[in-house]
Order: sequence, then structure tokens, then C-alpha cells
Amino acid sequence: MASTKTLLGIILCFLAIQFGCATQLVRHSANQEVIAMRWAIAIHGGAGTIGRDAEASIQESYLAALQVALEAAERILASGGTSLDAVQEAVRILEDDPLFNAGRGAAIMADGHCELDAAVMDGATRNSGAVAFVRGVRNPVLLARHVMEATPHMLVAGDGALRLAKQKGFQIEPDSYFETERRRRMWDRERQRQRVGPEAGEVELAMGTVGAVALDQFGNLAAATSTGGLTNKMPGRVGDSPLVGIGTYANNATCAISCTGTGEEFIRLTVAHRISAMMEFGGLSSSEAAKRVVMEELPRGSGGLILVDRLGNIETPYNSRGMYRATADSRGNRHVAIWE
Amino acid sequence: MASTKTLLGIILCFLAIQFGCATQLVRHSANQEVIAMRWAIAIHGGAGTIGRDAEASIQESYLAALQVALEAAERILASGGTSLDAVQEAVRILEDDPLFNAGRGAAIMADGHCELDAAVMDGATRNSGAVAFVRGVRNPVLLARHVMEATPHMLVAGDGALRLAKQKGFQIEPDSYFETERRRRMWDRERQRQRVGPEAGEVELAMGTVGAVALDQFGNLAAATSTGGLTNKMPGRVGDSPLVGIGTYANNATCAISCTGTGEEFIRLTVAHRISAMMEFGGLSSSEAAKRVVMEELPRGSGGLILVDRLGNIETPYNSRGMYRATADSRGNRHVAIWE
Repeated sequence: MASTKTLLGIILCFLAIQFGCATQLVRHSANQEVIAMRWAIAIHGGAGTIGRDAEASIQESYLAALQVALEAAERILASGGTSLDAVQEAVRILEDDPLFNAGRGAAIMADGHCELDAAVMDGATRNSGAVAFVRGVRNPVLLARHVMEATPHMLVAGDGALRLAKQKGFQIEPDSYFETERRRRMWDRERQRQRVGPEAGEVELAMGTVGAVALDQFGNLAAATSTGGLTNKMPGRVGDSPLVGIGTYANNATCAISCTGTGEEFIRLTVAHRISAMMEFGGLSSSEAAKRVVMEELPRGSGGLILVDRLGNIETPYNSRGMYRATADSRGNRHVAIWE
Repeated sequence: MASTKTLLGIILCFLAIQFGCATQLVRHSANQEVIAMRWAIAIHGGAGTIGRDAEASIQESYLAALQVALEAAERILASGGTSLDAVQEAVRILEDDPLFNAGRGAAIMADGHCELDAAVMDGATRNSGAVAFVRGVRNPVLLARHVMEATPHMLVAGDGALRLAKQKGFQIEPDSYFETERRRRMWDRERQRQRVGPEAGEVELAMGTVGAVALDQFGNLAAATSTGGLTNKMPGRVGDSPLVGIGTYANNATCAISCTGTGEEFIRLTVAHRISAMMEFGGLSSSEAAKRVVMEELPRGSGGLILVDRLGNIETPYNSRGMYRATADSRGNRHVAIWE
């Protein structure tokens, strides 16, 4: 029996080398060797008060958009690309889609303009790059990657970030590119609500922060998040998305995480690093840690997150009414959903 | 013997209630009840390449300035004030002192101006407030406290933060107030070094981020940090100081921390929350956790931090050539130092 196992091990190793893939032999907590997932990807398009009564056609549009981003990332991972490239591409596609509150279609803030935040993190080196409330940059996630790889800094914000984008030839767009008719209506209603008070009725706020986390065939984790923030927010307000360790985190020793929800609640708990630390120092599984933080520690209705751990396990807990999300892995699992 | 202990316990509780102080009975890891420190404070004025050959008169000026800030915070804590008020007052005094790279005397960045970052955090609620690269605000730490207590946000940056400061009547100063002759010389030398390369010789960069952490008589922890960032930095670059969980953190369950050093290295490790998490989930003492992160995980020469834990223990580890620091507690311990 033991020799059969050894033989199987040798054959598996041989196959792994032959196919140039980094199928990992990892020691489980139960001291049992398991073969890690070759690759895994999860993306989200925001969490919040998504009613089940929302128009079916709108729901279909969201699901279709998530599908497009998921497939692009899957192609990269399945063909041996890096997790960094996969999360960047998924987020770039969602930034370009006006349905989501990131890039085109970003929320409009108090002064009538859009400010964009994005972050990317490499779990192998724990290097990160982020931009905060930058205006006019078509794809903040690409600029965040540039900050990580081509500057000595990790977070660059405001006009400085816009200047960097212009110097390096990133695509700049006029205000009209970002501001959609739908966001303008949300902004008008939110301003009315703030004047009139709660009797103005419940307002559909711009949710739809986008994010992606992935494990690649080399065993490297990566995370990326991009957002337009809160409708009618105070200019300069920064949420959790561009903050590494809070809204975005990746560490090959534990997991990669991208959050979405009420940023201030996520900052209070240092959410992403907290989950990673529960795994690293407390011996919790990614599932236990993510559920504890999202379902027990964060206030109900504050949002959710997507997680891929170093073994390729995917978690997508949320405590809001729904979360737009899509997941896939090399075992053939695929899932695109808003609610359960 | 047991009844003597019980009697002593009753007397102690009675005295604690009588004097309105929150002397805490805390369960130690060794399962032994100990009486926590009534209050404790630590402040820093930055870490870096502080040579022992620096002019004695300059060293004396730094030590005297730290002493002034320490005493102000001590008075607040000894008279029953809150840890939040104590850390805010210590940092405000250091911001006003041109010796330190915060408020007046801030480092000058690439475009010839100063940008200021500050954060404050309340360990009881884990609420926090921070401002990033705000210009013209005399005391960024006061504005950070305002963000925490009077806005729904936790981090406000750039022009938005300046606008908030003006609306709320915070003291605004012209550029000439912040820029000292000494920082201007550092800026000139750093620009020359960047043009000429390393052969221009070692440059005294503006260190001198300031910070304070405290435990008050109510058992509440608080932390505050303020900085002008790096000399000749790219405009918009944000370091670790205003980032809650990285350069500044407070949690009544564990400790309060303020960091100083190469911000990017601190962001990579999520330093402050990492130490807190090692205590919370890994069962390490504050001393073990702080030393492990500063002396084993951070690169040598990257900086240091000050920490007060929930029992009033003070730690001040650094891996650079020195760190300006001062500590005091209700037991009468006092220490002001640059090196050992």
C-alpha cells in the first residue's frame, strides 16, 4: 500500500514537471499531503442592498459582465499566466464596464466629479501599489500596478497620481467618460435624501466596487480592487479599497483578499490582514477566519469579500443582501451569483 | 492565606473605586492576577541614521523637546485625562517644534512644498481618523481627531482635507511657516544626490516622524502619528503614518503602536496590526511580538516603533542607528533617549 502511494507520488511529480506546472505538494494541518489546486480565481462586483426584486434584465447584465471578466482571467491562469496578470485583467474589464462603480460608471461625489481608488498586491513579495482619489485615469488598476513595479512607493494619491499617469502615457479620459446617466440620477437622489432626510425614501447607492483574487500555477497569490467610492462623498474621502491590509491583501503564506462594503467598518477591523493573521498565527482555516470576521465581527449589512487561499480554496462570505461574484478553478468548478 | 488575599483584593477594589481610577485586575498568561499600570505613555521623534557623532547641542535640543512633549502628556494622564487627549497633545507639541519632520519643519517634497500626514486611533472603539498629504494645516493631528469624531469617514486626503480644515476653523499657515532653513538645505542636497548619484555622499534625510501611544487610567489605549514624509518625495506619495493598522494602531484588547521609518517596508508587513494580531491570535507578549517584527522581519535600518500594551508595558524596538524616544508611567519610570 505504502509503495503504491510512493509510486503514485513519483508519477505525479514526473507529470507535474513534464507539464511545467507548479502543482504543489502541501502539508495540511492534519499532516496529510494533498495536491493543491493548480489555479483558482474569484472576482466581485460589489456587495450591498441588492433586492431580489431588481429587474431581471439588469441582473442578467451584471451576471454577463462578471462572466466576461471571469473568462478573461481564467484564460490567463489556465495558459500559465500569473495571478497578478489575471486579477489585473479582470479588474480592468470591470472598470471599463459602466455597470460597476469603478473606472467608467464610478460614483459621483459631492462636488459632482468622480475620484477613483485602486490597489494591487503580489503575495510572493508582499509588494503592493495603490492610487487614491485620482481623477481622469481610465484604468486605475493599471496605474496601481505601475506604482508597485516602477516607483519606490506603494501609495500615490490625488494630483500626484494623475501627473504620474500622464508622464507614463496612461490613458486619460474626460469627466464625461466616467459619469453615466444612472450614476447622475443616484447622485441627484442622494443629495435630495441628504437635504430632505430619511423620508425621501431608500436610495440605491452606488455599490459595485470591483475586485479579483487569484492563485496561479506557480503557487503565487495576488489581489486587486478598484472603486469609485461612495455617492456624494466628501472629496478626498478614502475608503478601504486602496488600503493594503484592509480592502486588498495578498500573502503567499496565507491567502489573497479583496473586500467590498462600508469602507470605514473594514478599516476599523483591518479586515484583510486580520483574516490572514488568524490563519498565520491562530491556525484557523481560510473558511473559519473569513466567516468569523465577516459574519461575527463586521456589522450586518456592511459588505463582504472574496478570498483565495494558498491551496486554491475559494471563500465569498458577505453579510449584506447580496454580492455580485464569480469563481472558477482548475478542477472545473464555476459559479456566478448575486445571492446564495 | 487565601482569606488574606481575598481581604487584600476587597481593600484594593475599594481604594480603586474611592479614587475613581480604573486600576484593573487583569488575568496574566500565567493565570496570576496582577494589578495593571495606572497609566503609561511613550512618544517618538523618528528613527534613522542618527550618528553618535552628531553635535552635542543638537542632541540636547532633541532630548529637551521630547521632554516637553512627554511632560505635557504625563500631566494629562496623571490627572485622569484620556489617552486620546494625551497622545494628541504630545504630537501637537512635536508638530509645532521645527526640529521634527511633522507640522512645522516638515520635509520638502519634489515640487518644493510640504505635504502632511497624520492619524489618530481610539483603542476602545477602534475608531480612527486620518489626513493624508494635506497642505497648510498647522496641526494635522487635530484635523485627524476631527475626522474621527465629527465626520462619517476615517481617511480624508489632499484638497478635501484642507477644505474641511478651513470650514471648521482649523489654523492654516502659509508655506513659509512649515519650511525651515534646515529642511531646505536637506532638499537641495537630496536633489543633488538624485542628479549626481551615490557619489554625492550620504545625505541626512528628513527623519523625525513623530508619534505617541498611551494607556489611561480608564484602561483605554490610543495612538497618534504625524509626519511630513520623505525629502524630495513624489507629490501624493503616502507612507505608513496615516494608514491605520500599518503606521498607527490602537486596540484595547492588545496594544497601541506608532511607527517611524521607511514607510513602504511597514506597509509590506502591515506592521502595527501584525504585532497586535501576534498577541491576539498567537498568544505572544507585546515584547515578543514587537521584537519579532522589528528585529527579525523588517529589513535592518528600516526604523522602529513605540508600543504601550493593555497592561501598561512599554516597548521601543528599532533596527536603525537610533530612535528619538521618551517614555514614562505611573510607577515613576522615566526614560528619554536616542540610542540605547
